[in-house]
Amino acid sequence: MTHAADNNPHTGGTNYNDSFPKIPALAVGIQDADKLAAAIGKNSNITLFIRSNAKMLADTIGHNVIGEIKGTEFPDEIITIGGHLDSWDPAEGAHDDGAGCVHSIEVLRALKAIGYKPKRTIRVVLFVNEENGLRGGNKYAEEAKAKNEKHLFALESDEGGFTPRGFGFTMPKEKLQKVRQWLPLLMPYGTFELNEGGGGADIGPLNRALGTPLAGLSPDSQRYFDFHHARSDVFEAVNKRELELGAVNMAALIYLVDKYGL
Amino acid sequence: MTHAADNNPHTGGTNYNDSFPKIPALAVGIQDADKLAAAIGKNSNITLFIRSNAKMLADTIGHNVIGEIKGTEFPDEIITIGGHLDSWDPAEGAHDDGAGCVHSIEVLRALKAIGYKPKRTIRVVLFVNEENGLRGGNKYAEEAKAKNEKHLFALESDEGGFTPRGFGFTMPKEKLQKVRQWLPLLMPYGTFELNEGGGGADIGPLNRALGTPLAGLSPDSQRYFDFHHARSDVFEAVNKRELELGAVNMAALIYLVDKYGL
Repeated sequence: MTHAADNNPHTGGTNYNDSFPKIPALAVGIQDADKLAAAIGKNSNITLFIRSNAKMLADTIGHNVIGEIKGTEFPDEIITIGGHLDSWDPAEGAHDDGAGCVHSIEVLRALKAIGYKPKRTIRVVLFVNEENGLRGGNKYAEEAKAKNEKHLFALESDEGGFTPRGFGFTMPKEKLQKVRQWLPLLMPYGTFELNEGGGGADIGPLNRALGTPLAGLSPDSQRYFDFHHARSDVFEAVNKRELELGAVNMAALIYLVDKYGL
Repeated sequence: MTHAADNNPHTGGTNYNDSFPKIPALAVGIQDADKLAAAIGKNSNITLFIRSNAKMLADTIGHNVIGEIKGTEFPDEIITIGGHLDSWDPAEGAHDDGAGCVHSIEVLRALKAIGYKPKRTIRVVLFVNEENGLRGGNKYAEEAKAKNEKHLFALESDEGGFTPRGFGFTMPKEKLQKVRQWLPLLMPYGTFELNEGGGGADIGPLNRALGTPLAGLSPDSQRYFDFHHARSDVFEAVNKRELELGAVNMAALIYLVDKYGL
Protein backbone atom coordinates (compact mmCIF):
# COMPACT_ATOMS: atom_id res chain seq x y z
CA MET A 1 0.00 0.00 0.00
CA THR A 2 2.69 2.51 0.98
CA HIS A 3 6.32 2.68 2.09
CA ALA A 4 5.65 5.81 4.15
CA ALA A 5 5.43 5.57 7.93
CA ASP A 6 2.52 8.05 8.12
CA ASN A 7 -1.13 7.22 8.86
CA ASN A 8 -2.73 8.46 5.63
CA PRO A 9 -5.44 6.19 4.22
CA HIS A 10 -5.04 5.49 0.48
CA THR A 11 -8.34 5.37 -1.39
CA GLY A 12 -9.17 2.79 -4.04
CA GLY A 13 -12.01 0.74 -5.47
CA THR A 14 -13.89 -2.18 -3.96
CA ASN A 15 -15.09 -5.01 -6.20
CA TYR A 16 -17.58 -7.68 -5.16
CA ASN A 17 -17.97 -11.27 -6.28
CA ASP A 18 -21.55 -12.51 -6.05
CA SER A 19 -20.42 -15.85 -4.60
CA PHE A 20 -19.44 -14.14 -1.34
CA PRO A 21 -21.27 -11.84 1.10
CA LYS A 22 -20.79 -8.15 0.27
CA ILE A 23 -19.04 -6.85 3.39
CA PRO A 24 -18.42 -3.11 3.83
CA ALA A 25 -14.83 -2.05 3.11
CA LEU A 26 -12.94 1.17 3.72
CA ALA A 27 -9.31 2.33 3.68
CA VAL A 28 -7.39 2.99 6.93
CA GLY A 29 -3.85 4.23 7.53
CA ILE A 30 -1.10 1.69 8.24
CA GLN A 31 -0.65 2.91 11.84
CA ASP A 32 -4.38 2.37 12.49
CA ALA A 33 -4.20 -0.98 10.72
CA ASP A 34 -1.33 -2.04 13.01
CA LYS A 35 -3.28 -0.91 16.10
CA LEU A 36 -6.34 -2.86 14.93
CA ALA A 37 -4.27 -5.96 14.19
CA ALA A 38 -2.67 -5.78 17.64
CA ALA A 39 -6.05 -5.33 19.36
CA ILE A 40 -7.61 -8.21 17.40
CA GLY A 41 -4.57 -10.38 18.14
CA LYS A 42 -5.20 -9.95 21.86
CA ASN A 43 -8.96 -10.47 21.71
CA SER A 44 -10.75 -12.18 18.84
CA ASN A 45 -14.09 -10.95 20.18
CA ILE A 46 -13.36 -7.28 19.50
CA THR A 47 -16.15 -4.84 18.53
CA LEU A 48 -15.43 -1.90 16.27
CA PHE A 49 -17.55 1.20 15.64
CA ILE A 50 -17.12 2.47 12.08
CA ARG A 51 -18.84 5.50 10.64
CA SER A 52 -18.38 6.50 7.00
CA ASN A 53 -19.95 9.50 5.30
CA ALA A 54 -19.03 8.25 1.83
CA LYS A 55 -21.82 7.96 -0.70
CA MET A 56 -22.23 7.55 -4.43
CA LEU A 57 -23.69 10.69 -5.99
CA ALA A 58 -25.69 10.81 -9.23
CA ASP A 59 -23.76 11.16 -12.48
CA THR A 60 -23.05 14.63 -13.84
CA ILE A 61 -21.43 16.00 -17.00
CA GLY A 62 -17.62 16.07 -17.19
CA HIS A 63 -15.39 17.11 -20.08
CA ASN A 64 -12.10 16.10 -21.63
CA VAL A 65 -10.03 19.26 -22.17
CA ILE A 66 -8.32 19.21 -25.55
CA GLY A 67 -5.75 21.45 -27.26
CA GLU A 68 -3.79 20.75 -30.43
CA ILE A 69 -1.34 22.04 -33.02
CA LYS A 70 -2.45 21.08 -36.54
CA GLY A 71 0.10 19.19 -38.63
CA THR A 72 1.57 20.97 -41.65
CA GLU A 73 2.18 17.88 -43.78
CA PHE A 74 -0.05 15.11 -42.41
CA PRO A 75 -2.77 16.96 -40.47
CA ASP A 76 -4.94 13.83 -40.41
CA GLU A 77 -2.32 11.81 -38.53
CA ILE A 78 -2.93 12.41 -34.83
CA ILE A 79 -0.47 12.06 -31.99
CA THR A 80 -2.20 12.14 -28.58
CA ILE A 81 -0.45 13.14 -25.35
CA GLY A 82 -2.39 12.89 -22.14
CA GLY A 83 -2.93 12.71 -18.44
CA HIS A 84 -6.11 12.78 -16.40
CA LEU A 85 -7.75 15.80 -14.81
CA ASP A 86 -9.71 14.07 -12.06
CA SER A 87 -8.30 12.89 -8.74
CA TRP A 88 -9.45 11.17 -5.57
CA ASP A 89 -10.74 13.61 -2.99
CA PRO A 90 -8.29 13.31 -0.03
CA ALA A 91 -5.96 15.81 -1.78
CA GLU A 92 -5.43 17.67 -5.02
CA GLY A 93 -3.82 14.72 -6.85
CA ALA A 94 -0.59 16.55 -7.66
CA HIS A 95 1.32 13.41 -8.69
CA ASP A 96 -1.84 11.47 -9.73
CA ASP A 97 -2.26 13.00 -12.19
CA GLY A 98 -1.54 16.73 -11.99
CA ALA A 99 2.03 15.90 -13.04
CA GLY A 100 0.79 14.07 -16.15
CA CYS A 101 -1.45 17.01 -17.10
CA VAL A 102 1.43 19.49 -16.69
CA HIS A 103 3.80 17.15 -18.57
CA SER A 104 1.35 16.97 -21.49
CA ILE A 105 0.65 20.71 -21.64
CA GLU A 106 4.38 21.43 -21.38
CA VAL A 107 5.18 19.29 -24.46
CA LEU A 108 2.89 21.44 -26.60
CA ARG A 109 4.08 24.69 -24.97
CA ALA A 110 7.76 23.78 -25.47
CA LEU A 111 7.32 22.79 -29.13
CA LYS A 112 5.42 26.04 -29.74
CA ALA A 113 8.00 28.13 -27.84
CA ILE A 114 10.85 26.95 -30.10
CA GLY A 115 8.73 27.66 -33.19
CA TYR A 116 8.48 24.01 -34.22
CA LYS A 117 5.81 23.33 -36.84
CA PRO A 118 4.83 19.67 -36.48
CA LYS A 119 4.17 17.57 -39.58
CA ARG A 120 1.45 15.65 -37.75
CA THR A 121 -1.34 16.96 -35.54
CA ILE A 122 -0.19 16.93 -31.93
CA ARG A 123 -3.11 16.85 -29.53
CA VAL A 124 -3.02 17.19 -25.76
CA VAL A 125 -5.95 15.57 -23.95
CA LEU A 126 -6.64 16.07 -20.25
CA PHE A 127 -8.96 13.13 -19.68
CA VAL A 128 -11.90 13.27 -17.29
CA ASN A 129 -13.06 10.45 -14.96
CA GLU A 130 -10.01 8.18 -15.06
CA GLU A 131 -10.30 7.22 -11.41
CA ASN A 132 -13.97 6.35 -11.48
CA GLY A 133 -14.92 4.63 -14.72
CA LEU A 134 -12.53 5.80 -17.47
CA ARG A 135 -15.37 7.53 -19.28
CA GLY A 136 -13.09 10.28 -20.69
CA GLY A 137 -10.70 7.75 -22.24
CA ASN A 138 -13.55 5.55 -23.52
CA LYS A 139 -15.39 8.50 -25.07
CA TYR A 140 -12.21 9.78 -26.75
CA ALA A 141 -11.62 6.39 -28.41
CA GLU A 142 -15.31 6.08 -29.34
CA GLU A 143 -15.25 9.49 -31.08
CA ALA A 144 -11.96 8.67 -32.80
CA LYS A 145 -13.52 5.49 -34.21
CA ALA A 146 -16.81 7.17 -35.19
CA LYS A 147 -14.93 9.95 -37.04
CA ASN A 148 -12.54 7.41 -38.61
CA GLU A 149 -9.54 9.40 -37.29
CA LYS A 150 -6.02 8.12 -37.93
CA HIS A 151 -4.20 7.84 -34.59
CA LEU A 152 -0.48 7.31 -35.15
CA PHE A 153 0.62 7.21 -31.51
CA ALA A 154 -0.57 8.00 -27.98
CA LEU A 155 1.59 8.80 -24.95
CA GLU A 156 0.38 9.02 -21.36
CA SER A 157 2.00 10.19 -18.14
CA ASP A 158 0.17 8.77 -15.12
CA GLU A 159 2.84 7.46 -12.76
CA GLY A 160 3.89 10.65 -10.99
CA GLY A 161 6.28 13.55 -11.51
CA PHE A 162 9.50 11.81 -10.46
CA THR A 163 12.87 11.58 -12.28
CA PRO A 164 12.13 9.81 -15.58
CA ARG A 165 13.68 6.36 -15.96
CA GLY A 166 12.31 5.50 -19.39
CA PHE A 167 9.21 4.73 -21.41
CA GLY A 168 7.15 1.57 -21.74
CA PHE A 169 5.69 0.76 -25.18
CA THR A 170 2.73 -1.27 -26.41
CA MET A 171 3.31 -1.56 -30.15
CA PRO A 172 4.47 -4.08 -32.78
CA LYS A 173 8.10 -5.21 -32.48
CA GLU A 174 9.30 -3.45 -35.65
CA LYS A 175 7.98 -0.12 -34.40
CA LEU A 176 9.65 -0.63 -31.02
CA GLN A 177 12.92 -1.42 -32.83
CA LYS A 178 12.65 1.91 -34.65
CA VAL A 179 11.97 3.77 -31.38
CA ARG A 180 14.91 2.08 -29.67
CA GLN A 181 17.31 3.57 -32.22
CA TRP A 182 16.40 6.99 -30.80
CA LEU A 183 17.65 6.10 -27.30
CA PRO A 184 20.82 8.29 -27.45
CA LEU A 185 18.61 11.26 -28.43
CA LEU A 186 16.19 10.75 -25.54
CA MET A 187 18.62 10.68 -22.62
CA PRO A 188 22.19 11.67 -23.44
CA TYR A 189 23.40 10.84 -19.92
CA GLY A 190 22.68 8.04 -17.45
CA THR A 191 20.47 5.04 -18.00
CA PHE A 192 17.10 5.24 -19.65
CA GLU A 193 14.97 2.25 -20.56
CA LEU A 194 12.74 1.71 -23.57
CA ASN A 195 10.76 -1.33 -22.46
CA GLU A 196 8.07 -3.54 -23.91
CA GLY A 197 4.68 -3.04 -22.29
CA GLY A 198 3.28 0.29 -21.24
CA GLY A 199 0.74 2.97 -21.97
CA GLY A 200 -1.89 4.37 -19.67
CA ALA A 201 -5.46 3.82 -18.55
CA ASP A 202 -6.83 6.76 -20.56
CA ILE A 203 -5.19 5.84 -23.87
CA GLY A 204 -5.81 2.09 -23.49
CA PRO A 205 -9.23 2.37 -25.22
CA LEU A 206 -7.55 3.93 -28.32
CA ASN A 207 -5.35 0.86 -28.61
CA ARG A 208 -8.28 -1.50 -28.13
CA ALA A 209 -10.53 0.35 -30.60
CA LEU A 210 -8.02 1.34 -33.31
CA GLY A 211 -4.80 -0.56 -32.56
CA THR A 212 -3.01 2.74 -31.83
CA PRO A 213 0.60 2.22 -30.63
CA LEU A 214 0.95 3.39 -27.02
CA ALA A 215 3.64 4.53 -24.64
CA GLY A 216 3.73 5.54 -20.99
CA LEU A 217 6.33 7.59 -19.15
CA SER A 218 8.11 5.51 -16.46
CA PRO A 219 9.31 7.76 -13.64
CA ASP A 220 11.31 6.52 -10.66
CA SER A 221 8.69 4.54 -8.78
CA GLN A 222 10.09 4.46 -5.24
CA ARG A 223 8.12 7.39 -3.80
CA TYR A 224 4.87 7.09 -5.77
CA PHE A 225 2.99 5.11 -3.13
CA ASP A 226 3.88 7.63 -0.44
CA PHE A 227 1.40 9.90 -2.24
CA HIS A 228 -0.88 7.78 -4.47
CA HIS A 229 -4.58 8.35 -3.57
CA ALA A 230 -3.62 9.88 -0.22
CA ARG A 231 -3.88 13.33 1.37
CA SER A 232 -0.10 13.71 0.95
CA ASP A 233 -0.50 14.01 -2.86
CA VAL A 234 -0.11 17.79 -2.87
CA PHE A 235 1.71 20.36 -5.02
CA GLU A 236 4.56 20.67 -2.47
CA ALA A 237 5.42 16.97 -2.96
CA VAL A 238 6.33 17.53 -6.61
CA ASN A 239 9.93 18.50 -7.35
CA LYS A 240 10.28 21.12 -10.08
CA ARG A 241 13.43 19.67 -11.59
CA GLU A 242 12.09 16.10 -11.72
CA LEU A 243 8.81 17.30 -13.25
CA GLU A 244 10.68 19.26 -15.94
CA LEU A 245 12.82 16.24 -16.85
CA GLY A 246 9.68 14.18 -17.48
CA ALA A 247 8.31 16.85 -19.82
CA VAL A 248 11.69 17.19 -21.60
CA ASN A 249 11.80 13.47 -22.36
CA MET A 250 8.16 13.35 -23.47
CA ALA A 251 8.73 16.34 -25.77
CA ALA A 252 11.79 14.64 -27.27
CA LEU A 253 9.86 11.42 -27.95
CA ILE A 254 6.90 13.28 -29.48
CA TYR A 255 9.27 15.34 -31.66
CA LEU A 256 10.94 12.15 -32.94
CA VAL A 257 7.63 10.39 -33.65
CA ASP A 258 6.38 13.50 -35.45
CA LYS A 259 9.55 13.92 -37.49
CA TYR A 260 10.26 10.30 -38.43
CA GLY A 261 6.85 8.62 -38.11
CA LEU A 262 6.28 5.21 -36.57
CA MET B 1 24.12 25.96 -7.75
CA THR B 2 20.57 24.70 -7.31
CA HIS B 3 17.48 23.77 -9.28
CA ALA B 4 15.18 24.85 -6.46
CA ALA B 5 13.26 28.11 -6.72
CA ASP B 6 13.86 28.97 -3.03
CA ASN B 7 16.21 31.64 -1.67
CA ASN B 8 18.52 29.42 0.41
CA PRO B 9 22.22 30.27 0.16
CA HIS B 10 24.44 27.22 -0.46
CA THR B 11 27.74 27.37 1.42
CA GLY B 12 31.08 26.39 -0.09
CA GLY B 13 34.76 27.20 -0.10
CA THR B 14 36.54 30.24 -1.49
CA ASN B 15 40.00 29.89 -3.01
CA TYR B 16 42.32 32.77 -3.80
CA ASN B 17 44.99 33.12 -6.46
CA ASP B 18 47.80 35.48 -5.45
CA SER B 19 47.84 37.09 -8.91
CA PHE B 20 44.49 38.72 -8.22
CA PRO B 21 43.16 40.93 -5.41
CA LYS B 22 41.51 38.92 -2.63
CA ILE B 23 37.95 40.22 -2.72
CA PRO B 24 35.46 39.15 -0.03
CA ALA B 25 33.02 36.45 -1.17
CA LEU B 26 29.85 35.07 0.36
CA ALA B 27 26.93 32.91 -0.76
CA VAL B 28 23.50 34.41 -1.44
CA GLY B 29 20.23 32.79 -2.49
CA ILE B 30 19.26 32.76 -6.17
CA GLN B 31 16.30 35.12 -5.61
CA ASP B 32 18.61 37.64 -3.95
CA ALA B 33 21.15 37.11 -6.73
CA ASP B 34 18.48 37.88 -9.33
CA LYS B 35 17.42 41.03 -7.45
CA LEU B 36 21.05 42.17 -7.23
CA ALA B 37 21.65 41.48 -10.91
CA ALA B 38 18.53 43.44 -11.84
CA ALA B 39 19.54 46.39 -9.61
CA ILE B 40 23.09 46.41 -10.98
CA GLY B 41 21.74 46.16 -14.53
CA LYS B 42 19.82 49.39 -14.00
CA ASN B 43 22.61 51.29 -12.26
CA SER B 44 26.26 50.35 -12.50
CA ASN B 45 27.07 52.71 -9.62
CA ILE B 46 25.17 50.70 -7.01
CA THR B 47 26.39 50.56 -3.38
CA LEU B 48 25.78 47.46 -1.28
CA PHE B 49 26.01 47.08 2.49
CA ILE B 50 27.15 43.56 3.43
CA ARG B 51 27.65 42.33 6.96
CA SER B 52 28.93 38.85 7.69
CA ASN B 53 29.46 37.32 11.12
CA ALA B 54 31.46 34.40 9.72
CA LYS B 55 34.92 33.82 11.19
CA MET B 56 37.52 31.08 11.28
CA LEU B 57 37.84 29.61 14.77
CA ALA B 58 40.94 27.93 16.13
CA ASP B 59 41.39 24.20 15.48
CA THR B 60 39.98 21.73 17.97
CA ILE B 61 40.05 17.93 18.32
CA GLY B 62 37.64 15.85 16.23
CA HIS B 63 37.33 12.09 15.94
CA ASN B 64 36.57 9.49 13.31
CA VAL B 65 33.97 7.09 14.73
CA ILE B 66 34.83 3.49 13.87
CA GLY B 67 33.02 0.16 14.33
CA GLU B 68 33.90 -3.18 12.78
CA ILE B 69 33.14 -6.90 12.56
CA LYS B 70 36.36 -8.94 12.57
CA GLY B 71 36.80 -11.32 9.67
CA THR B 72 36.71 -15.08 10.42
CA GLU B 73 39.05 -16.20 7.65
CA PHE B 74 41.09 -13.15 6.59
CA PRO B 75 40.85 -10.76 9.57
CA ASP B 76 43.76 -8.71 8.21
CA GLU B 77 41.94 -7.88 4.99
CA ILE B 78 39.94 -4.73 5.66
CA ILE B 79 36.86 -3.52 3.81
CA THR B 80 36.01 0.09 4.73
CA ILE B 81 32.52 1.56 4.39
CA GLY B 82 32.09 5.22 5.16
CA GLY B 83 30.38 8.57 5.13
CA HIS B 84 31.27 11.80 6.91
CA LEU B 85 29.95 13.01 10.24
CA ASP B 86 30.48 16.73 9.83
CA SER B 87 28.25 19.11 7.92
CA TRP B 88 28.02 22.78 7.02
CA ASP B 89 26.17 24.79 9.63
CA PRO B 90 23.05 26.09 7.83
CA ALA B 91 21.29 22.77 8.62
CA GLU B 92 21.89 19.31 9.99
CA GLY B 93 23.33 17.88 6.75
CA ALA B 94 20.78 15.09 6.43
CA HIS B 95 21.67 14.26 2.82
CA ASP B 96 25.27 15.53 3.10
CA ASP B 97 26.20 13.26 4.70
CA GLY B 98 23.81 11.97 7.33
CA ALA B 99 22.47 9.60 4.66
CA GLY B 100 25.96 8.20 4.01
CA CYS B 101 26.55 7.64 7.75
CA VAL B 102 23.21 5.84 8.12
CA HIS B 103 23.87 3.81 4.94
CA SER B 104 27.24 2.70 6.32
CA ILE B 105 25.96 1.81 9.79
CA GLU B 106 23.01 -0.04 8.24
CA VAL B 107 25.30 -2.30 6.17
CA LEU B 108 26.98 -3.57 9.34
CA ARG B 109 23.67 -3.80 11.24
CA ALA B 110 22.00 -5.75 8.42
CA LEU B 111 24.87 -8.23 8.04
CA LYS B 112 24.87 -8.76 11.82
CA ALA B 113 21.07 -9.10 11.96
CA ILE B 114 21.08 -12.00 9.47
CA GLY B 115 23.88 -13.69 11.41
CA TYR B 116 26.42 -13.30 8.60
CA LYS B 117 30.02 -13.94 9.70
CA PRO B 118 32.25 -12.08 7.25
CA LYS B 119 35.50 -13.66 6.04
CA ARG B 120 37.16 -10.26 5.95
CA THR B 121 37.08 -7.45 8.51
CA ILE B 122 34.26 -5.07 7.65
CA ARG B 123 34.83 -1.64 9.13
CA VAL B 124 32.46 1.31 9.20
CA VAL B 125 34.13 4.70 9.47
CA LEU B 126 32.21 7.92 10.09
CA PHE B 127 34.83 10.40 8.99
CA VAL B 128 35.33 13.77 10.65
CA ASN B 129 36.15 17.07 8.91
CA GLU B 130 35.30 16.18 5.30
CA GLU B 131 33.87 19.60 4.52
CA ASN B 132 36.74 21.59 5.90
CA GLY B 133 40.06 19.92 5.19
CA LEU B 134 39.52 16.15 4.90
CA ARG B 135 41.57 15.57 8.05
CA GLY B 136 39.56 12.47 9.05
CA GLY B 137 40.11 10.78 5.71
CA ASN B 138 43.76 11.79 5.58
CA LYS B 139 44.40 10.55 9.11
CA TYR B 140 42.68 7.23 8.43
CA ALA B 141 44.91 6.58 5.40
CA GLU B 142 48.00 7.75 7.30
CA GLU B 143 47.29 5.29 10.14
CA ALA B 144 46.54 2.49 7.68
CA LYS B 145 49.91 3.07 6.04
CA ALA B 146 51.80 3.37 9.33
CA LYS B 147 50.27 0.10 10.62
CA ASN B 148 50.85 -1.58 7.25
CA GLU B 149 47.18 -2.58 7.10
CA LYS B 150 45.86 -4.45 4.06
CA HIS B 151 42.91 -2.56 2.62
CA LEU B 152 41.02 -4.69 0.09
CA PHE B 153 38.27 -2.25 -0.79
CA ALA B 154 36.63 0.99 0.39
CA LEU B 155 33.08 2.17 -0.35
CA GLU B 156 31.71 5.64 0.36
CA SER B 157 28.23 7.13 0.24
CA ASP B 158 28.38 10.92 0.00
CA GLU B 159 25.91 11.92 -2.73
CA GLY B 160 22.65 11.91 -0.78
CA GLY B 161 19.96 9.45 0.25
CA PHE B 162 18.10 9.22 -3.07
CA THR B 163 17.05 6.15 -5.11
CA PRO B 164 20.30 4.33 -5.97
CA ARG B 165 21.18 4.29 -9.67
CA GLY B 166 24.48 2.42 -9.44
CA PHE B 167 28.05 2.50 -8.19
CA GLY B 168 31.14 4.19 -9.61
CA PHE B 169 34.46 2.34 -9.26
CA THR B 170 38.09 3.41 -9.17
CA MET B 171 40.01 0.15 -9.58
CA PRO B 172 41.99 -1.82 -12.16
CA LYS B 173 40.00 -3.04 -15.19
CA GLU B 174 40.17 -6.75 -14.29
CA LYS B 175 38.68 -6.05 -10.87
CA LEU B 176 35.90 -3.97 -12.39
CA GLN B 177 35.18 -6.82 -14.83
CA LYS B 178 34.78 -9.15 -11.85
CA VAL B 179 32.43 -6.71 -10.09
CA ARG B 180 30.34 -6.27 -13.24
CA GLN B 181 29.50 -9.98 -13.27
CA TRP B 182 27.61 -9.37 -10.02
CA LEU B 183 25.20 -6.87 -11.62
CA PRO B 184 22.15 -9.19 -11.63
CA LEU B 185 22.71 -9.80 -7.89
CA LEU B 186 22.88 -6.08 -7.07
CA MET B 187 19.64 -4.86 -8.65
CA PRO B 188 17.30 -7.60 -9.82
CA TYR B 189 14.88 -5.06 -11.36
CA GLY B 190 15.32 -1.87 -13.37
CA THR B 191 18.55 -0.33 -14.54
CA PHE B 192 21.60 -0.08 -12.37
CA GLU B 193 25.00 1.11 -13.56
CA LEU B 194 28.46 -0.10 -12.60
CA ASN B 195 30.60 2.69 -14.00
CA GLU B 196 34.28 3.48 -14.22
CA GLY B 197 35.31 6.34 -11.94
CA GLY B 198 34.01 6.90 -8.45
CA GLY B 199 34.79 6.74 -4.76
CA GLY B 200 34.50 9.51 -2.22
CA ALA B 201 36.47 12.36 -0.68
CA ASP B 202 37.07 10.52 2.61
CA ILE B 203 38.36 7.29 1.06
CA GLY B 204 40.38 9.01 -1.66
CA PRO B 205 43.47 9.21 0.61
CA LEU B 206 43.39 5.39 1.06
CA ASN B 207 43.61 4.97 -2.69
CA ARG B 208 46.44 7.50 -2.98
CA ALA B 209 48.42 6.05 -0.04
CA LEU B 210 47.82 2.31 -0.56
CA GLY B 211 46.23 1.90 -3.99
CA THR B 212 43.01 0.63 -2.36
CA PRO B 213 40.21 -0.02 -4.89
CA LEU B 214 37.32 2.40 -4.30
CA ALA B 215 33.65 2.67 -5.02
CA GLY B 216 31.00 5.31 -4.41
CA LEU B 217 27.22 4.93 -4.32
CA SER B 218 25.54 6.87 -7.15
CA PRO B 219 22.04 7.92 -6.13
CA ASP B 220 19.62 9.73 -8.43
CA SER B 221 21.23 13.17 -8.63
CA GLN B 222 18.31 15.37 -9.67
CA ARG B 223 17.36 16.67 -6.21
CA TYR B 224 20.77 16.76 -4.50
CA PHE B 225 21.45 20.42 -5.18
CA ASP B 226 18.09 21.44 -3.75
CA PHE B 227 19.64 20.53 -0.38
CA HIS B 228 23.43 20.47 -0.71
CA HIS B 229 25.08 22.85 1.82
CA ALA B 230 21.76 24.65 2.37
CA ARG B 231 19.33 25.06 5.26
CA SER B 232 16.91 22.73 3.43
CA ASP B 233 19.21 19.73 4.07
CA VAL B 234 17.10 18.39 6.95
CA PHE B 235 15.89 14.98 8.12
CA GLU B 236 12.41 15.55 6.63
CA ALA B 237 13.95 15.84 3.14
CA VAL B 238 15.18 12.24 3.25
CA ASN B 239 12.75 9.57 2.01
CA LYS B 240 12.81 6.37 4.09
CA ARG B 241 12.31 4.01 1.16
CA GLU B 242 15.02 5.64 -0.97
CA LEU B 243 17.45 5.65 1.96
CA GLU B 244 16.82 1.95 2.61
CA LEU B 245 17.42 1.04 -1.05
CA GLY B 246 20.85 2.68 -0.90
CA ALA B 247 21.78 0.65 2.17
CA VAL B 248 20.44 -2.57 0.61
CA ASN B 249 22.60 -2.13 -2.48
CA MET B 250 25.68 -1.22 -0.44
CA ALA B 251 25.18 -4.27 1.80
CA ALA B 252 24.86 -6.51 -1.28
CA LEU B 253 28.09 -5.13 -2.78
CA ILE B 254 30.00 -5.48 0.50
CA TYR B 255 28.70 -9.05 0.93
CA LEU B 256 29.90 -9.98 -2.57
CA VAL B 257 33.34 -8.40 -2.09
CA ASP B 258 33.67 -10.16 1.26
CA LYS B 259 32.55 -13.53 -0.11
CA TYR B 260 34.40 -13.57 -3.45
CA GLY B 261 37.28 -11.13 -2.88
CA LEU B 262 38.42 -8.57 -5.41
